[in-house]
Amino acid sequence: MDTWEAYLDEHKDRFIRELEEFLRIPSISGLADHRQHVYKAAEWIEARMAEAGIESVHIMSTGGHPVVYGDWLHAPGKPMVLIYGHFDVQPVDPIDLWESPPFEPVIKDDRIYARGASDDKGNMFIPITVAEGMLKTLGSLPVNVKFLFEGQEEIGSPQLPDFISANKDLLNCDLVVSADGGQWAEDQPALILGTRGLVAVFLDVEGPDHDLHSGVYGGTIANPIHALARIIDSMHDADGRITVEGFYDDVRSLTNEEREQMARVPFDEGDYLRETGAKRLFGEPGFTSHERAWARPTLEVNGIYGGFQEQGMKTVLPSTAHAKITCRLVADQDPSRIVDLLVRHVNRVAPEGVKATTTVAEKGAMPYLVPADHPGLYIAGGVLRDIYGREPYRIRSGGTVPVNFLFLQHLKAYTIVFAFGLRDERIHSPNEFFRLASFMRGQKAYGMLLHRLEGEFKQG
Amino acid sequence: MDTWEAYLDEHKDRFIRELEEFLRIPSISGLADHRQHVYKAAEWIEARMAEAGIESVHIMSTGGHPVVYGDWLHAPGKPMVLIYGHFDVQPVDPIDLWESPPFEPVIKDDRIYARGASDDKGNMFIPITVAEGMLKTLGSLPVNVKFLFEGQEEIGSPQLPDFISANKDLLNCDLVVSADGGQWAEDQPALILGTRGLVAVFLDVEGPDHDLHSGVYGGTIANPIHALARIIDSMHDADGRITVEGFYDDVRSLTNEEREQMARVPFDEGDYLRETGAKRLFGEPGFTSHERAWARPTLEVNGIYGGFQEQGMKTVLPSTAHAKITCRLVADQDPSRIVDLLVRHVNRVAPEGVKATTTVAEKGAMPYLVPADHPGLYIAGGVLRDIYGREPYRIRSGGTVPVNFLFLQHLKAYTIVFAFGLRDERIHSPNEFFRLASFMRGQKAYGMLLHRLEGEFKQG
Repeated sequence: MDTWEAYLDEHKDRFIRELEEFLRIPSISGLADHRQHVYKAAEWIEARMAEAGIESVHIMSTGGHPVVYGDWLHAPGKPMVLIYGHFDVQPVDPIDLWESPPFEPVIKDDRIYARGASDDKGNMFIPITVAEGMLKTLGSLPVNVKFLFEGQEEIGSPQLPDFISANKDLLNCDLVVSADGGQWAEDQPALILGTRGLVAVFLDVEGPDHDLHSGVYGGTIANPIHALARIIDSMHDADGRITVEGFYDDVRSLTNEEREQMARVPFDEGDYLRETGAKRLFGEPGFTSHERAWARPTLEVNGIYGGFQEQGMKTVLPSTAHAKITCRLVADQDPSRIVDLLVRHVNRVAPEGVKATTTVAEKGAMPYLVPADHPGLYIAGGVLRDIYGREPYRIRSGGTVPVNFLFLQHLKAYTIVFAFGLRDERIHSPNEFFRLASFMRGQKAYGMLLHRLEGEFKQG
Repeated sequence: MDTWEAYLDEHKDRFIRELEEFLRIPSISGLADHRQHVYKAAEWIEARMAEAGIESVHIMSTGGHPVVYGDWLHAPGKPMVLIYGHFDVQPVDPIDLWESPPFEPVIKDDRIYARGASDDKGNMFIPITVAEGMLKTLGSLPVNVKFLFEGQEEIGSPQLPDFISANKDLLNCDLVVSADGGQWAEDQPALILGTRGLVAVFLDVEGPDHDLHSGVYGGTIANPIHALARIIDSMHDADGRITVEGFYDDVRSLTNEEREQMARVPFDEGDYLRETGAKRLFGEPGFTSHERAWARPTLEVNGIYGGFQEQGMKTVLPSTAHAKITCRLVADQDPSRIVDLLVRHVNRVAPEGVKATTTVAEKGAMPYLVPADHPGLYIAGGVLRDIYGREPYRIRSGGTVPVNFLFLQHLKAYTIVFAFGLRDERIHSPNEFFRLASFMRGQKAYGMLLHRLEGEFKQG
């Protein structure tokens, strides 16, 4: 009988054809008229999981885009692993920048080009093929595995929190393995230990109840744009430190070991400035760029508007001015406490003569950080080390992945990101692609991971 | 033989019919497809002036919308008066708020409703009818009169500076009387002594060369919105004083007499706040609201924009942020010096890591102020006092009327605003109207003014 590795190798061409089929479904969760395509992707993955030998496979409704669940639970006494991924994709605009149609996969130079190839269809398909390989050869998996694939990740998983909360028993597990993410480089693995949380607020300043003639009224009435500028400027000092009182109170300090691990990760200032087009680095004093992006909170105004914004000039004293603000949070900051601090700050600094209102724009996301000594990190790190021949970097993401915290909150399980996308694969952009070499390497890695979790993972 | 007053009274109905005819021409200077209507209004007024007995009447080209010139110069040794007005009008949007079509004049309750009724067709038609009345009865005017009516006031008279400069001899005069303006109230006359100047600049801040993901890059690169807020906030202190170095250097101080005259003009704080919807008065300490609006310079951000401005939230670290700024200037500030001070200020305070650029948005306008002892003021004031039975207020306008300074610059003649619009007549808004009573009162006033200029005006 074949080994699972040999099975995967033999069926390689079929897996790639199947991935192409999966990529042809335009499952854009953010566009209302693609709703049925998201559902079609759920049906495709449901059928494919069942074919693989995964059990209890079914589509579950969430109130929004569906999730697909399946499991294989015949390893009594062994760890329970929940594998997560998503089958929805980003929109394709700007469409004219695509060199081939986004939903007609093209293979070129060992890369498969299509929307969702890397994020996340190519990655989430890997563990399904591995389960098939093991079940068709060994007849079993080394550990108990549950699969949870969702169809609303690209729109922020609005119904997922309630869904997870309502299905705690079904999803109960010892460890989550997320197939949504990537590695540092083709020759360099990485473990993502944390993601930042988020709070988003609208800051609205009202002055006069209609736009006034700046000649007639200018100088006699507070200008809401001036007031908004004052409030925004009061939120940072000249060095880039956030000056909202109490903002840093709950920030967990970096240990020396963590700082050393981050310092190991290459950072080329010249490349970074070329990549961003920025004139120089700027940020909270006392921290490196990696530390600023991964382990320090931020407060960024994402948008501002008020008064006359068209071409030319119009001499109005505007009625209102508006800013959209998000804070990225790190352990152990709490979004709701940060909102309170922001509201208090705005109320304290808002000039007289205008009304400044701070409104929570969307549900906050908690920051997420795996304990540095979590056994899942060691096991996954060991697999990556053996496959790449290099010690994985221990990095974090400056972005926000709410689902990681949701699993911790509701299932009391940490998430290990175990995925094989690379940073140049243009996710969310035209000409997204996935390396077929990563697809194969990911299969090998997932197989090794499941085997090692059997022997090495100690349940919490 | 009739007096000119009797003539005006006898022909009243015809004048009103003629005004209706004039108002039917949609001479919107700001809309390209109304160009021929502006020209048609010029032709209408040309013909009408000739009928009145005014001489040398002709349309003159400017490179843009035309002007109409005419004169009557048979009073040797008497003062030379240039009467100014404009026959172009504002656009009519929002059209659905008009109770009757803007170019189909309707008379109701002794008011004539139409776009341009008050600003400025009704007002500029007055001196033409008075000239006709005098020429048809007396056969002469008491002083030498030149008429200059333009067709581009509502778009800022772009070609008028060059036109006046090129036609100094033709327009040469001792005094300009402007038929574009108004009185304080139906029972209260006012003399407008000054208008504020203007400089307009665009302030553009550039950071990264494209919008960045605020999770990935937030905290490591300067945010241009933060930088813009810092620059804007640095332009005023908390009390509303402008903190651009040197900004107030050339401001002419108010005399005690000027302050007393302004204090005589009623100001009801409750009404003002109701009218504007503002929560409270706000402005430069040490000055009343009238003083702030009329005799003190301002710096107002008229518009601001940058980053994500649509509904919802998008977590970008934006590439650029922009503000549109205008300063209203008072005697003896110079627009070009103020621009220099603004540029220097921005360069001084702009945070590192971004590029801040200050660009002049449009040609500046000089502030304008008639000397308080100018004889034209006393003569016009005497006429108004006799007609209204009340001493006119000596006010200023916080707005900007570049033409006043142009006449001073090129013709060395001050302008006395002598017009009869009232503040509730909805100029530039739907349902603009002009009081027929003001039309008649204006005729009487213009006749008296010309007579008194003959006897009382001492040429400079």
